[in-house]
Amino acid sequence: MRKILVIGIGAGNPNYLTVQAIEALNRADVFFIPDKGTEKAALRLFREEVCARFIREPRFREVVVPIPRRAETPDYRANVDEWHAAIEASYERLFAEALGPDETGAFLVWGDPAVYDSTLRLLDRLLAKGVAFEHEVIPGIGAIQALAAQHKIPLNRIAEPVLITTGRRLDEDFPRHPGSVVVMLDGTVSFTRVPEPETVEIYWGAYLGTKDAILVAGRLSEVCGEIERLRAEAREKHGWIMDTYLMRRVGGASE
Amino acid sequence: MRKILVIGIGAGNPNYLTVQAIEALNRADVFFIPDKGTEKAALRLFREEVCARFIREPRFREVVVPIPRRAETPDYRANVDEWHAAIEASYERLFAEALGPDETGAFLVWGDPAVYDSTLRLLDRLLAKGVAFEHEVIPGIGAIQALAAQHKIPLNRIAEPVLITTGRRLDEDFPRHPGSVVVMLDGTVSFTRVPEPETVEIYWGAYLGTKDAILVAGRLSEVCGEIERLRAEAREKHGWIMDTYLMRRVGGASE
Repeated sequence: MRKILVIGIGAGNPNYLTVQAIEALNRADVFFIPDKGTEKAALRLFREEVCARFIREPRFREVVVPIPRRAETPDYRANVDEWHAAIEASYERLFAEALGPDETGAFLVWGDPAVYDSTLRLLDRLLAKGVAFEHEVIPGIGAIQALAAQHKIPLNRIAEPVLITTGRRLDEDFPRHPGSVVVMLDGTVSFTRVPEPETVEIYWGAYLGTKDAILVAGRLSEVCGEIERLRAEAREKHGWIMDTYLMRRVGGASE
Repeated sequence: MRKILVIGIGAGNPNYLTVQAIEALNRADVFFIPDKGTEKAALRLFREEVCARFIREPRFREVVVPIPRRAETPDYRANVDEWHAAIEASYERLFAEALGPDETGAFLVWGDPAVYDSTLRLLDRLLAKGVAFEHEVIPGIGAIQALAAQHKIPLNRIAEPVLITTGRRLDEDFPRHPGSVVVMLDGTVSFTRVPEPETVEIYWGAYLGTKDAILVAGRLSEVCGEIERLRAEAREKHGWIMDTYLMRRVGGASE
């Protein structure tokens, strides 16, 4: 039976690859490479670097998967759903065309495939439609872990929970959450809108894991402007940015 | 200057080790091995297996760190604080006695050092007291990631947040949280107390990453009894258990 490996390759640092991921890279006959346009060129370069470094006998084929642009109407869930349907159709065609009956295909996923990534959901849609394949998931070191490690902090304070959310939900989620809040996929500097920033600490990072990593930590009221400035400059310089941050109210019971 | 490496060695599977963690293992002169008594013998065996497999020239020394038992009075934070003060005193003494001025010591942390682990907090306490050392943190694949990978699920549903919490907080946290809830450190089968279990799906795992891994998934009302039974049997058989699970209300907007 055809097999699909969903391999977490970590967030930007080839040294984040696990032994399990390296073994999986070496089992793949075909890599499916999503093509999301020029702004994701850095991610493609990282994938190529990982393959060049860790694949012992390069006998694999690469198949580029054209990824349509997602609509940007206000109904986020509907846009994602329509977008997934379009990608699903490409995957189904490519599995049939590019993968022999006993071959192994692989998706290389930035970070961890379980955290804000669509690959597993798309494979489930294909399985639900009756497309026949087996699959395995290989976890990877994600941006949240890179953020914590580079700032040398635990994500949680003692006896407190951790919420992982998106920039889009932050206005709603931050005020009502008692512990630490980690924000991913924030295109709109949502941290600038947090009320009472003098009572909030932030640990921010961009390009985490890579040689271009930028880190800032401090009281939100004091570092907010600096983060905005660094973020804008870096985005201008690199042509893209991916940032992640953790925030929590200070003065809680566990300090 | 003395250097301390805090190395995430992943949750139970030696193949979860990253290239970065393997390099770090090979830099350590001294491993500090916490001794938490017989119930943690399995964790010690795992650490020994990892060292035996990945350290190329075994020239390291091992120093056992006696870990006092934590008090179990109702004031959890006070107990943790007192317990940390006692461990901190041992660390300070051991760094001075066991580590030469330019040597590198290492702590091998199960899973990821950023997730419900005290090592980083203890090192910060020592730094705040003026104990001189540098430290680096190496992230690892944690039990939450192993859970998601082995069940082949994303942690989040589309556009929804993920809460990471403990068994102790679940009664309070689960009802008010809109997305997925991941529970760690649950000694009291808190999932059995969730109201309306017929509207909840659970993905449960024990000994994740190891050859003894057990996985159960389904509607909470249907699998709750099976998980309790398997959990009790496994605990009896192994003498200890470490389990993690994800729950979410079904019938949400994203399904």
